[in-house]
Amino acid sequence: MGDCAELQHNGVPSIFDVLRERRAKAGKLVAGVAAVSDSDMFKAPSDGKPKAKDWTSHLSPESQLRPPCILKQASGYLKLPGMISLGGGFPSSEYFPYSEISMRVPTAPNFAESDPTQLVSIGKHDIRDGTSEYDLSVALNYGQATGSAQMTRFITEHTELMFNPPYADWQICMTVGSTSALEQTVRMLCDVNRKDSILTEEYTFATALETLLPLGIKAFGVQMDSEGLLPASMDRILSEWNEVARGARKPHVLYTVPSGQNPTGATQSLQRRREIYAVCQKHDIYIIEDEPYYYIQMPAYKAAAEPPSTRVEDFLTQLVPAYLSIDTDGRVLRMDSFSKVLVPGSRLGWITASAQIVQRYQRHAEVANQGPSGFSQIMLWKLLDETWGHEGYLRWLMDLRSQYTSRRNMLLSVCDEFLPRDVVSWTPPSSGMFLWLKVDPSKHPEYPQRSVLDIEEEIFLNAIDNGVLCARGSWFRTEPGTSSNEIFFRATYASASEEAMGTAIQRLSLAIRKSFQLA
Amino acid sequence: MGDCAELQHNGVPSIFDVLRERRAKAGKLVAGVAAVSDSDMFKAPSDGKPKAKDWTSHLSPESQLRPPCILKQASGYLKLPGMISLGGGFPSSEYFPYSEISMRVPTAPNFAESDPTQLVSIGKHDIRDGTSEYDLSVALNYGQATGSAQMTRFITEHTELMFNPPYADWQICMTVGSTSALEQTVRMLCDVNRKDSILTEEYTFATALETLLPLGIKAFGVQMDSEGLLPASMDRILSEWNEVARGARKPHVLYTVPSGQNPTGATQSLQRRREIYAVCQKHDIYIIEDEPYYYIQMPAYKAAAEPPSTRVEDFLTQLVPAYLSIDTDGRVLRMDSFSKVLVPGSRLGWITASAQIVQRYQRHAEVANQGPSGFSQIMLWKLLDETWGHEGYLRWLMDLRSQYTSRRNMLLSVCDEFLPRDVVSWTPPSSGMFLWLKVDPSKHPEYPQRSVLDIEEEIFLNAIDNGVLCARGSWFRTEPGTSSNEIFFRATYASASEEAMGTAIQRLSLAIRKSFQLA
Repeated sequence: MGDCAELQHNGVPSIFDVLRERRAKAGKLVAGVAAVSDSDMFKAPSDGKPKAKDWTSHLSPESQLRPPCILKQASGYLKLPGMISLGGGFPSSEYFPYSEISMRVPTAPNFAESDPTQLVSIGKHDIRDGTSEYDLSVALNYGQATGSAQMTRFITEHTELMFNPPYADWQICMTVGSTSALEQTVRMLCDVNRKDSILTEEYTFATALETLLPLGIKAFGVQMDSEGLLPASMDRILSEWNEVARGARKPHVLYTVPSGQNPTGATQSLQRRREIYAVCQKHDIYIIEDEPYYYIQMPAYKAAAEPPSTRVEDFLTQLVPAYLSIDTDGRVLRMDSFSKVLVPGSRLGWITASAQIVQRYQRHAEVANQGPSGFSQIMLWKLLDETWGHEGYLRWLMDLRSQYTSRRNMLLSVCDEFLPRDVVSWTPPSSGMFLWLKVDPSKHPEYPQRSVLDIEEEIFLNAIDNGVLCARGSWFRTEPGTSSNEIFFRATYASASEEAMGTAIQRLSLAIRKSFQLA
Repeated sequence: MGDCAELQHNGVPSIFDVLRERRAKAGKLVAGVAAVSDSDMFKAPSDGKPKAKDWTSHLSPESQLRPPCILKQASGYLKLPGMISLGGGFPSSEYFPYSEISMRVPTAPNFAESDPTQLVSIGKHDIRDGTSEYDLSVALNYGQATGSAQMTRFITEHTELMFNPPYADWQICMTVGSTSALEQTVRMLCDVNRKDSILTEEYTFATALETLLPLGIKAFGVQMDSEGLLPASMDRILSEWNEVARGARKPHVLYTVPSGQNPTGATQSLQRRREIYAVCQKHDIYIIEDEPYYYIQMPAYKAAAEPPSTRVEDFLTQLVPAYLSIDTDGRVLRMDSFSKVLVPGSRLGWITASAQIVQRYQRHAEVANQGPSGFSQIMLWKLLDETWGHEGYLRWLMDLRSQYTSRRNMLLSVCDEFLPRDVVSWTPPSSGMFLWLKVDPSKHPEYPQRSVLDIEEEIFLNAIDNGVLCARGSWFRTEPGTSSNEIFFRATYASASEEAMGTAIQRLSLAIRKSFQLA
């Protein structure tokens, strides 16, 4: 692990000391080409935690039928001393045309643009040469579908630090991003021939809906408030389920984005999460927790100007606990991503779930993608593990939080300034990158003669004419067939500059004013 | 494109000059974050080539139902001048912790270890700074599922150079490797509820079988000789198809590895390919052409010692033409991979097929993986396009061919020397990385009391005891239920050193001799 500013801990070992000691005890990680690994190699002992429940009945026939990869299994023999392999068609690293890769990265723990950057290098044979535990000869060859042992160790430790799942047999498995993880998970749990269906927020990530549709899996929307999913609505839907009327079996899966939900920006409180979890227990629901925005949890808008604590421990305790952290049953598959906090182009994320679920996931990954890119794995590992270390990475996340806080505040302040409050309302988001603007159609001069969908389109096109692109709320509607009297637009503060955000909101304001014939 | 040793062409423009001129005419490629692109932007005019046939009836219901990605569609508005996006949740590249990546790579056209390597650098804002057409700010952000415009251009041109498909509307689409491409293609073409099935070689890639099994798609094996698939066997199977007896609908898809087939090492001649194609036309079969080993086509074993030509044009004309190159109907989806010729860890390959098929594939990729890693894309592009250029890359492939030729020859010579010819026979492979060793069970002292599968296992375990791992032939049997009187082992010359290969074959020889009680 990289070294970073030491915590002051008055003789009590810090959370990072504990990990460092565990690694020191385990000795150097020896993991060559396509080495098999899992989280159990790197976790703390599970001391009396219960084992996950059995989820076999929730699995699709496809998932239950998945055989192990026979060629990857055979590579188990390679552990025998002196074994020569004429088995797998792994090219020799001799022919890899990359002998060294270097990268320039910011220096922990301050990351400021003014601070000097570091140049970090990765050689082809650093493992052989004793200069690193991971190198190009391993990363750029074939690997296991779960990802490399090196990165599995880092992610396992990070997951333990962040979430400490309350059951014993949790594991992580790398993914080629959460988009992919969702598709694999849906195929693992749902089957059209069983008329399976999924519950989710009434407005949800459009790509999730596009994942379900061709598989013939119906999605049903649960009502929301400013804290997202309403447990009572969910319980009512499930208690009153009528298979014939719904045209689908009672859902056995919930898909939710608990923090900074896409598109509404809503964040479930811990209390809300507990209530939802209880409803899931009552109705035997398996939970897919999709959390790309989890790490971007911000102080309340216009909160006392006091800057947030700079202590890493405070960062960890201030985050709303994940479903994974309250998951005593092992009924949660959590999807994490580096896309919003490092680079989307890595196409590398991970799931955390019970060993049985991870095994099903892994078997699918062996034929669906063979795990993430080796370039991505080693370039993230070199940065996160060997250069920054756990504490450095958490400080990066803290730094990012303050960047997004300032972006969010900027967008909210121009909204305060320019949007017509009689027709547009919003709740300042406390996580993520989205602001959900509610437009009241009843104030529109042609309402109700014109449909809300028509009015939404009119505003959208006016905005395009004015030079600003927002996402239409109807794109995210889980049950597009059901009537809605609401109009929403999703605006992001992720990418536009301060100046551009101001211009954009003025343009949007003019578009709305034109539709509503306001001054 | 990188500069490389110029060809001598006496005033006639070379194939590379033609590409260079086309690029010069098109002007600088301008393609920012998640820019939409396709092969039509980079191909030669299709001058009178026919359009592909319509394959809708071959598609699965799942594939036919795939909607476009609404969020990616909306990004089309970003082309309008002055448009500000509050639409997509794309992080700002300001927060990407990689400001520069450098790589040390061999120098074209000689690549010898003794030649000086080159250090090539990629900055975050090379596009803005006018120093490159591709940079980290674009590659490391979200992209299109088809891959970046920059890499699409290179691959389109390479595909045109290598294969020049004889129909007009072909396109390429990047993949996250051919393993993934196969799974996506099977889901695109096959459906368990239609009782769909697939034809393939009687011994085939084990992972392909593991892909089909959980989907409930049956695979049926076509007999082979030393040139692979037998067209007469295929025609007979299809002509005599009995849906009830087979428990499956007559196959509408062929999956084949035409060159250096895995596991048999067989390579179909052009004549053989034409005959198979004709059978496919007769029975309306769609062809999945999986060609990871295509570029590793070698001179015959113990051919006249004359070294192969060093002219790139000769390399191109000496390769057996691909199905893609004789595909007048657009009935081929070809899968290409960089795994065997650059690095497997890139998890980046591409398919080539008709526009309608690529569109279906792309829509699935949008929810299944979002395309290959940005690290992989830019690191391959920097090497292939900007550093080596097309000619340099072809020379790399020629160099690789000679490396594999020498590896193959080494393995064959130790087989000649050590294996007992009375029970073991083989055909020297002319492509790829595999040698397929046939063992005659009838010479075994306990044959036929013991089954061939038992004898195969005995030899396999003897070999393991002796310290050599080969792959068992039965792992690759397409219809494991059908009886076979043959025993095979697959040995690869891809990775072991010269010395290790000699030791390994001696160990294997002892294992066989022990089983067969030979001296």
